[in-house]
Parts: sequence; structure tokens; C-alpha cells
Amino acid sequence: MKLGPVLMLALLAAASGAAEPPSNAGHQPPIQTVTPPAPAGTPPASVQWLYGSGEAVGASMTAYRAFQNYAVAAVRHRPRDSVVLASDATLRTPRFVPCGRKPLAVVLDVDETALLNIGYEYDQAAQKRSYNPERWSDWERTGLPDTETVPGVFLALRAIRAAGIKVIFISNRSLENVAYTELALDRAYLGPARHLKELFVEGDAPGGSAKDPRRALIASRYCVVAMAGDQLGDFTDLFNSNGDSPPARRSMAKGLHISQLWGNGWFVLPNPVYGTGVKGNFYDVFPSDRWTDTVGGQ
Amino acid sequence: MKLGPVLMLALLAAASGAAEPPSNAGHQPPIQTVTPPAPAGTPPASVQWLYGSGEAVGASMTAYRAFQNYAVAAVRHRPRDSVVLASDATLRTPRFVPCGRKPLAVVLDVDETALLNIGYEYDQAAQKRSYNPERWSDWERTGLPDTETVPGVFLALRAIRAAGIKVIFISNRSLENVAYTELALDRAYLGPARHLKELFVEGDAPGGSAKDPRRALIASRYCVVAMAGDQLGDFTDLFNSNGDSPPARRSMAKGLHISQLWGNGWFVLPNPVYGTGVKGNFYDVFPSDRWTDTVGGQ
Repeated sequence: MKLGPVLMLALLAAASGAAEPPSNAGHQPPIQTVTPPAPAGTPPASVQWLYGSGEAVGASMTAYRAFQNYAVAAVRHRPRDSVVLASDATLRTPRFVPCGRKPLAVVLDVDETALLNIGYEYDQAAQKRSYNPERWSDWERTGLPDTETVPGVFLALRAIRAAGIKVIFISNRSLENVAYTELALDRAYLGPARHLKELFVEGDAPGGSAKDPRRALIASRYCVVAMAGDQLGDFTDLFNSNGDSPPARRSMAKGLHISQLWGNGWFVLPNPVYGTGVKGNFYDVFPSDRWTDTVGGQ
Repeated sequence: MKLGPVLMLALLAAASGAAEPPSNAGHQPPIQTVTPPAPAGTPPASVQWLYGSGEAVGASMTAYRAFQNYAVAAVRHRPRDSVVLASDATLRTPRFVPCGRKPLAVVLDVDETALLNIGYEYDQAAQKRSYNPERWSDWERTGLPDTETVPGVFLALRAIRAAGIKVIFISNRSLENVAYTELALDRAYLGPARHLKELFVEGDAPGGSAKDPRRALIASRYCVVAMAGDQLGDFTDLFNSNGDSPPARRSMAKGLHISQLWGNGWFVLPNPVYGTGVKGNFYDVFPSDRWTDTVGGQ
């Protein structure tokens, strides 16, 4: 869904003293009400696909329908273990945190999993800019009107909550801007997302951007029945343990034990635009299979 | 899985007179046994992600696990209708072909749904080439050793067949090269894929590249319980009826009725590299939500 003018007004109301104002409202920038003209040319293929295509709508909804079905089924058949790996697990010997009698929860990432950062990615593509932490922080504070939800997430979370399952977000958005992130999720109808209750950001547990400590914290309180994310690090930091090359990471994801988890507790949303999946030179991406034709020409 | 040297030998054996030789074996080019050196630089983000990342493995397996679960469940709860739209359906008033007492089947696309055309996309990216039908035809004939399977498809099809469900492929590969396509699917352990039995290519029914006539043919013989593809045209040609703009196609995919089908009979594999999902200028991809920052700089 689009967070349009009505929500912009709601944001203004909130920022000016209503129910849940951002704590650092003094930094509140002017709300943009004019859509600027776009440059000539075309965005990269990955951006065209993720933000502009019906195909990406179908792919995201395919993943979210599976996430919802899997989570809701856990209410009838309560699992013995969380889908969060135990601290002594490896990718070859996965072990999971036991559920005990803890209440059920699902855990999901925010950016390009729950929220599509359309305005930010427009700016990067249109201005041919690379990532800049100051600009990203600006986006966390001002991006709400130009944010949409990932197709399928709203209905999935509604069904999951209706089944009595807690919904918890883990994001690497900043602690400084956490009130804005709470508001963004709430105004996108994906909340409640209260900090340290249903929303954990970078700095809420040790480990920096690594999410295992936050997952461990949540799995100590909840039986986590499903997780969703667009990066392998949204499932376990073991994928990121050695600065591994793309072919090594691809092999890890295809491994005998880990491959059982995709669509079966761990649900991946497609994101070809940024992150650990968008790496590598020609040797990394095509370690073999380097065909050439017999036709020639362009 | 990788179709390595052993399969290359199998291909050679087949092409030289064994069980299922390609009918046009006279065109057989030399089998490549040397992997050529790659150029400097990096492939586009979409190519890095789809062919090189663990994230794409997880996303594809997420979709295939859902496809498998959905199809196999239809054996216990036989549906009244196929998931193939009836000839008088529209996207706003979807109606489906009745199942009657027909046997169960699933229908899926081939390229970037069942097979990853890694070698071909390497060549396109490395040589900065655009699509060329003569080169693609060369690939259909010689690409087998540099083809891999989409992660998840092998186990999904095995489980679906074990449940007693027929697996049928619809591809826009050429009629001329159909024996090579049969062989490619067979050697990837995705067969049987015999022409006009489990494999329908362009020209097997009227309509050219449009797939509705082939879907109608299959739905007249089978109760189609699930379909998988990477392009919206793998589900219905109605998405392609008007040369629609990217925002119009995205709206169609999100429509009230059609959105119920994603992950619920229609399963989308991610493909940000080519096709109808990779279109549009900045106005198409970002019809609104064109944020700019307050930071400036690069």
C-alpha cells in the first residue's frame, strides 16, 4: 500500500504532539509534498524488477503466503523447537533453541522485507549515488511518505496475529531514529512495533549489525515458529562468519541441512538491489559454466 | 545441480545414437570442455543476485517448497477447478477451467523456472551483448553442460510425481530444437519431458509465444492444481494483453482477485535478469515516491 497524503497528515499530527511522537521531533525535516521530475534513462534491471514489476509482486506474495501458512499451522501443531539456531549450532550441524512453553512468535526484518524503501532507491538510482550513512539516516527520519509495504506482508501479518502469534521485527535501522521506525511500521499498518517489545534495532543487543544476539534474546522469550528476511543474515550470522565469497555462500545456502529450512521455517523475500546477495566479479558469480556461442557478433 | 563432465559424456553418447538422440543431430556443435577466462569488472546486480547469491537460492527454494506443499495437498483435497483461467475470464472476474474427473497435473515454465541458463547469461553479461535469436538458438542446442537447475525444483518435482501428479512444462523454446530441450530437462533429472506429452513449446498450439492456448489444451486433459513461472505470462496472457505499462501490470498483479492466487495456486520464481518484469523508465518504475534527501553530495 501507498502511504499517501492522508498518512503524511497523520505523520505531521503525530510529530506535532499526538499519541506517539518521535522522540527527536526537533530534527523533523519539512514534509515533501511535491513529487520531483525524474531524469531520462532507465533504472538498473534489479530496480526495475523489484520496485516496478508485477513479477516482483507475485514473487513477494508467493513468499508471504507460504510464511503465513507455515506460521499459522504451528498453532495446531506446536513445534518442539524454535527456527532460531542455538548458540552452538553450525551450518552442518544445525541445532535449534527449544520452545518449552514459551508463547509463539514470528520474526521478520524490516527493509525490503516489510517496507519497500522506494523513495530512497529512487534517489540512489536517479542520482547514481552509492550508499551514504548520513543520507540513509535522513531517509529513516523523512522517508515515511515515500515508503510502501512489501506486497503480501500486510495480510500475512494480520492473519498471523489473528492466530494468536506475536510479530517481532529485527532491523539494522539505528537506535537514534527508532521512534521514526516505530512510526513507519505503525503507519504502514504493520504494527504494533514498539521498541524492545516488537522491534529490535542495531544496538539493542551486543554484536552490532549481527542479528544472532537479538534472535537469541527473542528466542529466550518466545517460540519462534518462522522467520522472514531478504538477506541470509536475517536467518543466521553463520552465513557471514568468514567474509565468504559468493560461491561459498551459495554452497552454504544449498547445504544438505540448511536447504531443508527454506520455505520450511525460513522464508526469503527477493532483493536483487542491495546487500550481501549483490556481490562478486565474473569469477565469483560464474565460477564455471562460462559458455561462449558459435555465432559471434553483438 | 551442475551438469558436469559425466553428463557431457552422456550427451555425447545420446547424440551419437543412444536412446533419445536429438532429431537434428547433424547440427551438433563441438562440446566445450574448456572454461574460458572471464573479463574484469562485475556483472549487473540482477545477475550477481540470481546466478551468484545464496539469497537467490533461499528465495527460489522458498517458492518451490510452497509449490510442492500446495500441489501435494491437492491429492487429499481434490479441487473443483484447475488454476488455469477459463477462456472467458478477466483479471477482475477470474473464472477457472473445471477439473471434472481429469487426472491431476502441475504446469511450469522452463527457463529461469526449471533451468538456470547460467552459461548464456554469462555470455550476455561478459560480452555486454543484448538478446539475439540466433545466439539463443545456439544456446538451446549447446547449452546443456553450462545449465544448472533452479534451486528447489528437483526435490519439488520428485515429491509431486511421487504423490501421483503429472508434471508438464510449457516453454517458449523453439519447436526446431525441441529434442535438445527434452534432453536438457531429462539430463537435469527433471524429466520425463517428452514433446507433446510433458513438454509444450512455441508452435505446439496457436498463439505464438502466448501460452493461454497451450494452457487450455493441458487443462482440457488435466486438473491443473498449481503453476510455476518467472514471468506473469506463465500464468495468464491477460497480463500482456495491452502492452501495458509497468505500473499498470503491477496494479494488475496486486488486484483484489489476482492477488489471492500468488502462493495459492500460482507460484512466482524470482527473475530480475530479463523479461516483462525488467522494463520501464524512471516514471514507470517510480510513478510517485520520488524522494530526494536533504543531505546532498554523492
